[in-house]
Amino acid sequence: MTSRSDETLWQGSAWRLVGREIHLPGGVTRKKPIIDHPGSVVLLPLLEDRVVMVWQYRLALDQSILELPAGTRHPGEAWEECAQRELREETGYRAAQFVSLGHIWPGPGLTNEQMRLYLATGLTLDPLPQDEDEQIEIRLLPLEPLLRMALDGDLEDAKSIIGIIRAAHHLKI
Amino acid sequence: MTSRSDETLWQGSAWRLVGREIHLPGGVTRKKPIIDHPGSVVLLPLLEDRVVMVWQYRLALDQSILELPAGTRHPGEAWEECAQRELREETGYRAAQFVSLGHIWPGPGLTNEQMRLYLATGLTLDPLPQDEDEQIEIRLLPLEPLLRMALDGDLEDAKSIIGIIRAAHHLKI
Repeated sequence: MTSRSDETLWQGSAWRLVGREIHLPGGVTRKKPIIDHPGSVVLLPLLEDRVVMVWQYRLALDQSILELPAGTRHPGEAWEECAQRELREETGYRAAQFVSLGHIWPGPGLTNEQMRLYLATGLTLDPLPQDEDEQIEIRLLPLEPLLRMALDGDLEDAKSIIGIIRAAHHLKI
Repeated sequence: MTSRSDETLWQGSAWRLVGREIHLPGGVTRKKPIIDHPGSVVLLPLLEDRVVMVWQYRLALDQSILELPAGTRHPGEAWEECAQRELREETGYRAAQFVSLGHIWPGPGLTNEQMRLYLATGLTLDPLPQDEDEQIEIRLLPLEPLLRMALDGDLEDAKSIIGIIRAAHHLKI
């Protein structure tokens, strides 16, 4: 969602920073910074009983962390098209089926980014080139220990914690 | 974490947008945008068997959503000091105990923001004034239906989903 009052403060290739007016009680108006974002997909690809995870270097943290494959939607791109593209880019697999696991707001105080979560099944190899600024290794891990890690605090990435817990709930694990 | 290569692109009152150098294979260097953030706390305040939730207008979404109380750390503020301040500001309660439920990265592709989650118990009334740009209503809800909402996709806020699931796991619900 964008607003007519939005003033672009910084424009990037995937998202922009805007100043948006907020109307406070007493007739006062303020500008608040918002990251205006096209949204992203989060994938839980199942290869038999194992989840295709990624071990990814994150510049913001200066460390690698364990995550579900995910990526930002291109302008105008359909959600499932984005899901298939990101799956092929990050894992090298194409999925025959995507089952929705709902959506989340990762940071509603900061951004309108919506993340849509999908269980991806029926995987066959069909890679696309990785983004050149991404450093990703594939890790195949069974769902049950990942669920324990998500519950115990041993997974740290919010979207991955929720994707794993929702997938386990959906699959009645 | 900050980096010596950081170039400030935009400076706000709570966080800043920086361009940070990333070194790619082949000796190529690029600048990527990062939200440099002091971190935040997420609280699960328990009043007998009910969770003190907030129904909060989010400018980025132009809608109100159900969340756990949460807030951004002031520069140099200790985490539990921040937890007590945000709890008093948003709910009017002070807690006698904070139990850590671990930490999460809400958006590691975008920001170094770390969220630390706490179960807050032993609540007594001791309010601080709310931030004037926040529009918050308190909702008292039992933990068990909240857990079902978090699992079924009826809660949308990522930090709140994880806080509720981790608290239920910790309390063996």
